[in-house]
Parts: sequence; structure tokens; C-alpha cells
Amino acid sequence: MESTSEYAERRDRLNKIVLEQAGLPVKRFFALDQDVYEDGALPKRTKELLGLVASTVLRCDDCIRYHITEAIEAGASVEEIGEALGIALIVGGSIAIPHIRRAYEILGSLEPDG
Amino acid sequence: MESTSEYAERRDRLNKIVLEQAGLPVKRFFALDQDVYEDGALPKRTKELLGLVASTVLRCDDCIRYHITEAIEAGASVEEIGEALGIALIVGGSIAIPHIRRAYEILGSLEPDG
Amino acid sequence: MESTSEYAERRDRLNKIVLEQAGLPVKRFFALDQDVYEDGALPKRTKELLGLVASTVLRCDDCIRYHITEAIEAGASVEEIGEALGIALIVGGSIAIPHIRRAYEILGSLEPDG
Amino acid sequence: MESTSEYAERRDRLNKIVLEQAGLPVKRFFALDQDVYEDGALPKRTKELLGLVASTVLRCDDCIRYHITEAIEAGASVEEIGEALGIALIVGGSIAIPHIRRAYEILGSLEPDG
Amino acid sequence: MESTSEYAERRDRLNKIVLEQAGLPVKRFFALDQDVYEDGALPKRTKELLGLVASTVLRCDDCIRYHITEAIEAGASVEEIGEALGIALIVGGSIAIPHIRRAYEILGSLEPDG
Amino acid sequence: MESTSEYAERRDRLNKIVLEQAGLPVKRFFALDQDVYEDGALPKRTKELLGLVASTVLRCDDCIRYHITEAIEAGASVEEIGEALGIALIVGGSIAIPHIRRAYEILGSLEPDG
Repeated sequence: MESTSEYAERRDRLNKIVLEQAGLPVKRFFALDQDVYEDGALPKRTKELLGLVASTVLRCDDCIRYHITEAIEAGASVEEIGEALGIALIVGGSIAIPHIRRAYEILGSLEPDG
Repeated sequence: MESTSEYAERRDRLNKIVLEQAGLPVKRFFALDQDVYEDGALPKRTKELLGLVASTVLRCDDCIRYHITEAIEAGASVEEIGEALGIALIVGGSIAIPHIRRAYEILGSLEPDG
Repeated sequence: MESTSEYAERRDRLNKIVLEQAGLPVKRFFALDQDVYEDGALPKRTKELLGLVASTVLRCDDCIRYHITEAIEAGASVEEIGEALGIALIVGGSIAIPHIRRAYEILGSLEPDG
Repeated sequence: MESTSEYAERRDRLNKIVLEQAGLPVKRFFALDQDVYEDGALPKRTKELLGLVASTVLRCDDCIRYHITEAIEAGASVEEIGEALGIALIVGGSIAIPHIRRAYEILGSLEPDG
Repeated sequence: MESTSEYAERRDRLNKIVLEQAGLPVKRFFALDQDVYEDGALPKRTKELLGLVASTVLRCDDCIRYHITEAIEAGASVEEIGEALGIALIVGGSIAIPHIRRAYEILGSLEPDG
Repeated sequence: MESTSEYAERRDRLNKIVLEQAGLPVKRFFALDQDVYEDGALPKRTKELLGLVASTVLRCDDCIRYHITEAIEAGASVEEIGEALGIALIVGGSIAIPHIRRAYEILGSLEPDG
């Protein structure tokens, strides 16, 4: 598995390419995609869990990794993330299992004593 | 639009048919689908919002209606539901717009002065 | 719910429009979509169950109805269809539940004493 | 089938509700969703066909109807729309057939002598 | 391509992590996901083909590999698996082609003289 | 990232395996999948952009790479491809972002001075 820092480096490098070359709608969408997770009526912590569940049922490994990292940084506990993944599994079905497996692998690599 | 009580009646009638006729795995899955939204590390209110976002990005109108109703009953505010739908729209894209429209229509019909 | 004969009438009427107006690739695809369910190494009965599970996890009500009807005509039992729907539910998750409900409604309407 | 003017009326009424009640990210996304189809390196006519193919493989009837209407207004011919639908059918598979059927029904209702 | 034994080792290692750390709903779902493929009105062999078609139209390579292996162990012939993949291709469309290619690669590696 | 020539080699090798072993429906579908992008009412260049948008909203990296290569060969400009990807992003949402990133990486590797 690509490490979290390797992933972050690849993500930043490619985002830079996209933002240099893409047109205005793509740039505005990228900004919107940042803003929508900021504190509001719901705290960022909850919003990152919403992003995580959406990413898991839509089965995007890069997105799952991103939202797990952000959720932990925003103060979510491993137990809360586990419950969010449980909901994603029930809604999304067994087709989500390989992604749930990788989510737990990422989670293990991010924990203080992981 | 089918009213919320018509929907609930249809839902209960069909669930009864399924649970009478389906085999054990389907019955056990239906039970699991209840349990996973109960209070835990995350409160039921948050879990219903997770279910709502999953349902919106997967574009299931019946599921959206169900989780909006449950979220409101569990104490979620209209503003919190709106923010959850906003995240679903950004993650799921414009293809989710017709479902977001219907979600707001349902939300309007459930509010005290709706 | 639209009755099975109303559905069949609507389906035939629209297929006729498509086949009159569409280009060659669409026509060839429609033919292929017939041929692939014919008896081969696997009997048509099993192939219709494969089509049913694919239609259920992809959540297409018209397709579910079509394959249930064809499976029954090809000799599948209600119990076999129920087991196929159970697999579709586990693979596809709770998002498939509204479609499973409607599948049982259709199944009920097709049975001799339904 | 809901007529094109009934659909347009329902769409406008619900959009108004969403834009009155939704937060800033949803409003900004709706604006973006308008802008991205405007003339650029590709003409609006081609962009509406791109939106139509995306809507068909993602199987959203309201979106299909919207992009067919916009494509025709922007000067696309029935033959061009038919070829776009043919590509959507090959990429998206037989699960798209019910949507292709309804697309041809809409197309028939929009043509001068439809 | 990861070999079948490497895949099995990775799968087992990650399943162990998930089952140690995940909550009760996830554990119960994993059990259900085993039970649903057992012999019943339909034999396990047919059920694994149903799982294979579902996995192919939902485009999950790990799931495709798993169900091909299980289907072969349960006595399915290469020709039967090929017909199941053909149905998945017609239902799911050309977007499934890269997964069909990898399915044939896996199938080749599992055959006695592969 | 696998290079474009490595990808083409792998694609050809696996297509050969599929076409040797698969049944008639798969072979006929592969032929159809070639024909549908040929010049017609719409030029091949536009059709490849339609295929690219469909591939991006359905999130298939191999398919995205294939249609970008074909679109460039058929005369599409980088700016036109960028606008097509922008539409795919708005329709498909942030879940498409990792694929958009890889699309720009591929695009960079194909340009004369990339």
C-alpha cells in the first residue's frame, strides 16, 4: 500500500497540474469542494464522516483515504469512523468490502500506535 | 408527489410481503439495517445524516425520504439536513440535482409550517 | 403499480419507436441483448437469474420486472428467484431494498394464486 | 409521460425552493452547472450532447430530458442525438435501455411533426 | 497481476484486521455474506455465478477474482463462467471491458493447464 | 503510472485472450464497441469526447486513457478535452476528481512537449 505521505505528495503534485491547466469551472469546483466541509450547522468532524460514507458507497479508495485523514485531524475517534464505515457497508453492500478492508488498513497506519 | 403517510403505508405493506416470503439472509439483513442506525459512538441523529448522504449520492428517492424523516425525528435541524445535502451534491455531482430537488420538497412537507 | 400487461404493452410500443428510429449499433445491440440469454452451457433459466441479479444491483425496476417474468417462463421457481434476490441484496446493500420490495410485489402478481 | 412543459414547470418550481432554502455551496454549484455548458472551445451544442451521454450512462431520466431539450435548442439534429444515445448504450449497457426508450419518446414529442 | 495466492493472503490478513476492530454490524454482515452463497434451492455453483455477474456489472476486480475462484471450486466450467461474463458485459456495457479482460486473465491462471 | 505504450501492450495482449476464449456475444459486442465511434452525423473526434465523458462519470481509468488517446488522434485539442473533463466533473461530482487528476497526467504525457 502507498504510504499516507506518498499519497499526499502524489495528490498535491497532480492537483497542481490540474489547477494550472484546467478551465474556470474545474477551479471553482475544486474551491467548492474545500468549502463544503468547513464548520457550519454541522462541525467539520461530522462533515468529514459524511464525506467518508459517500466515498465508501461510491467506492473511491483515494477519497476514503482523504476523508479518514481529515476526520482524524478534525477530532473523530477510531470508533466513530468504524461506525460510519459500518453504515457505508450496510447501505453499499458486500461490493464495498474490499474498500472497507483498505479503510481499516489506512486507519491502522494513522493511529498513534498503529 | 406521494405523501409521507402514503409512502409509509406502501413501505410497510411491501416490507410485510418481503419478510413473509423472503429467506433467512434477507430477514437478517433487514434486522441489521435497523440496528446500524442506533445510538453508539455516534448518535442516531448523525447516523441518519450519514444514511441520507449515502442515499443521495446513490440516488434512491425512497431512501432519501426515509432518512430525512428519521433524521428529523432524531432531532436533526433543517439546516443540518441542508448541509448534509450540500455535501452529497458536491460529492455526487449534478446528476444528484433531481434528487436534491425532491429532498427539499419532502423537507418542506415535513416542517411544522411546511 | 403498472400491471405486467401494461408494462409489456408500453415496452413493446417504445421498442418499436427505438428500432424504427435508431441507427445500426443500437439495433445490433438489441439483437445481442436477446441472444445472450439463450440456452448454452448455462440454461436460459439460470441466465435470466443472472440478468435479474445484475438488474437488481444496478437498480433498474423495468429490468427486474422483465427478468422475473422471463425466469418464471423459463421454469425458475419462486424460491430460486428469492435466493437470487437475496444475493443481490447482500452484494448491493440496503440501497437495493426498495427494488427488492417491488420485485416481491411483481412476483406476487405473477404467481398462479397471486 | 409527463409533458415537456409540465416537466419544465415542476423543475422551475422545485429549483426555486432549493435556491431559497439551500446554503451557499448548493447555490454556487447550481451556477457552475449552468456555466459549464456555455460556448467555449467546444460549442454549446456539443456540450449538451456530452451532458446527454453522461446523463444516460448514469441513468437519470430528468437529466436526459433536460439535455435533449437543450441540445435541440442549441441546434443538434435528431440524428446527432441518436448517435450520442448509441454511444451511451454501448458504454452503459442494456441497463440503459429503459432510459434510451424514454429518450426516444421525449425526442418524438419534441420534433416539429412529433 | 497479483497472483491468486498473494491475493488470498492479502484478503485474509485484512479480513482479520477488520474482524478484530469492527463493530457487531460489520461482523454480522461478513457472516451473512458467507451464508448467502451456500447450497439452497440454487446450488452454490450457480450462486457463485450470480455473485460473479453482480461483481462484474458493479466493476469490483477483487470481488470478480473471488467469485471466479469459488465458482471453479464449486464445479463451474470455464464455459459457464464465460457465458456469465458475457451476460455481465451486455448488461453492464463497454465500461466493464477492462474488468472482463482481467477476469479472463484470472481464469487463465486458474485452469489446470493455464 | 503505467506508460501509454505499456498500457497499449497490456490491452492488446488481454484483448487477444478474450477474443480467443470468449463466446460469440462478447465478440460481437467488441466489434460494436469499435463501430459506434466511427464518423457519422457526428465526427469521430466528437464521439471520442462523448466516450471520454461517459468513461469519466463512470470512473474507469483504462477507458479514460483510451478515449483521450483516440480523441487526440482524431484531432481533438487539449482545450476541448479539458472542457469535456470539466463537464464530467460537474455531472459526476468530486468522486471523479482522482480520475480527473489521472486524466490530466495522461494528457500531459501525450502532448508534443509533455
